[in-house]
Amino acid sequence: MGRLMSTVLVVGTIALDSIKTPFGEKREILGGSGVYAAVAASFFAPTELIGPVGSDFPAAHLAFLQARRIGTSALQKLDGPTFRWGGYYEYDMNQAHTLETRLNVLSRFDPAVPENLRTTPYVFLGNIDPALQLKVISQLKRTKLLIADTMNFWIESKRAQLHEVIKQVDFMVMNDGEIRQFMETPNIPLAARRLIELGCRGVIVKKGEHGAICFTAGSTFAAPSYPQELLRDPTGAGDSFGGALIGYLAKTADLSDDNLRRAVVIGSVMASFNIEDFSLERLKRLKRKELVERFETVRGLAGFKKIPPAHLTLLA
Amino acid sequence: MGRLMSTVLVVGTIALDSIKTPFGEKREILGGSGVYAAVAASFFAPTELIGPVGSDFPAAHLAFLQARRIGTSALQKLDGPTFRWGGYYEYDMNQAHTLETRLNVLSRFDPAVPENLRTTPYVFLGNIDPALQLKVISQLKRTKLLIADTMNFWIESKRAQLHEVIKQVDFMVMNDGEIRQFMETPNIPLAARRLIELGCRGVIVKKGEHGAICFTAGSTFAAPSYPQELLRDPTGAGDSFGGALIGYLAKTADLSDDNLRRAVVIGSVMASFNIEDFSLERLKRLKRKELVERFETVRGLAGFKKIPPAHLTLLA
Repeated sequence: MGRLMSTVLVVGTIALDSIKTPFGEKREILGGSGVYAAVAASFFAPTELIGPVGSDFPAAHLAFLQARRIGTSALQKLDGPTFRWGGYYEYDMNQAHTLETRLNVLSRFDPAVPENLRTTPYVFLGNIDPALQLKVISQLKRTKLLIADTMNFWIESKRAQLHEVIKQVDFMVMNDGEIRQFMETPNIPLAARRLIELGCRGVIVKKGEHGAICFTAGSTFAAPSYPQELLRDPTGAGDSFGGALIGYLAKTADLSDDNLRRAVVIGSVMASFNIEDFSLERLKRLKRKELVERFETVRGLAGFKKIPPAHLTLLA
Repeated sequence: MGRLMSTVLVVGTIALDSIKTPFGEKREILGGSGVYAAVAASFFAPTELIGPVGSDFPAAHLAFLQARRIGTSALQKLDGPTFRWGGYYEYDMNQAHTLETRLNVLSRFDPAVPENLRTTPYVFLGNIDPALQLKVISQLKRTKLLIADTMNFWIESKRAQLHEVIKQVDFMVMNDGEIRQFMETPNIPLAARRLIELGCRGVIVKKGEHGAICFTAGSTFAAPSYPQELLRDPTGAGDSFGGALIGYLAKTADLSDDNLRRAVVIGSVMASFNIEDFSLERLKRLKRKELVERFETVRGLAGFKKIPPAHLTLLA
């Protein structure tokens, strides 16, 4: 039997992270926007990962990805050390503080999408240089859904290219600080409206502990976050959010507004698990059943009912 | 005919505020925690206000309150100038910066609850010194629902008294910064659990643009905020939230979990109107019909559906 055709393509970074949080310190652990997103997507759909790895990339990490049935044949193996990121989080853990960024092979990454992956229907462009995201987009064919992430660094340094990415994707995922910065207003609903006017279909604003809001021209959806008391390392939260979002949409092949709402919650739930441990440790242990259970927990937090007619009469 | 018995009693400050925001500057406008809360409550239920006014308190402001059928007979009229607060907001408007606090008559406020108001069933203790809140509580009888607000200043200076208030009320309303500070953890769900362990039934955490979360021992409810693009002056948002919350509960006389959720949304919606203009200007023009309409708008933002069985099968 042939290998199942992948339905999700993830492009992003592959990193060895050194991270300190109030709950511990880890050196050279697996990370990167592409890795987090691909692992999250792989819970739902066959996933292929494109990103640069150095000659020192541990075989164990490659084996981990392959054991999750993530396609690694299009990883770009380059001479030299793998991309390193070092940072820390203080007690409130909302803000990553970068100590060190060594691009290494990432600086020579030139994303080539092999012919057989160009027609992958669901594509997630993790946080990388928007110039590279554009290069990927130019190689894609018949994409059903294209979603891109970004970060403050590119907003500051590659604004024009990021504008172009926004024009060409279906959805952007950004965190609240990023969309405020990019649209130059502190008001998120206003920022989202302006961003959609630039040419994408919608934007999903990730707000960490405050949940997420999905804006399209015709609809707004506010997803609460799971009330997480067990937060050890926020690294990869946004990437795992995006990966789960596209993975769920790919698996269900349903782009209705109802299902997009569910996908946003699935993304948020995936991120809530991811932050419970360092690196991919929690996702390694995670069962799809746990995801569905937490989805239902969040649904219980979120709902409220109409004002009943008897009360409306009182208020008339 | 006798006057309708009031069902809501609000105790709080009465202020003349001087405020600057990116959208304008106003001097000596009506404000104060008691005023905002009482006006918000008065949309739903006959409301009585207790608080200190100085000899310079403009008759027009008193007439405004009375025109809203807010009982003012128990206001404490003291010789000297009314409480003044001066502050400004920067562009993001999440944080009030105090320029000047002149307590004036507020420093001599000694809340006496007249005999006929002691049995008011719904009581809201706006943001005042927790020692004064305790003094009010000691005079109350047969209260059905007691809710208190507070602020960072009392958390820093009156921690022991605030502990005692929490033991004696049904619900606290606090903003996210306050509950983090009081419970000494950045984690809101953890802070809420610890606060409930101190002895109250629940806590409603106001998060401004990020909505509100209502925690009780058995249930958590996350309310989104209305995506407000028109934000002119955030002063009084929290007070009008609390006043609308208790007013709605008083009017509907329904303390079920379903109705508590609705009341939290009504509070959030009232606050979203309040911030559209300075002082009580927007609430003066507000119709109850607009509240109900925005409530439904927020309901549309918030809901999401179960994962359908066909998708669950795919995920099994």
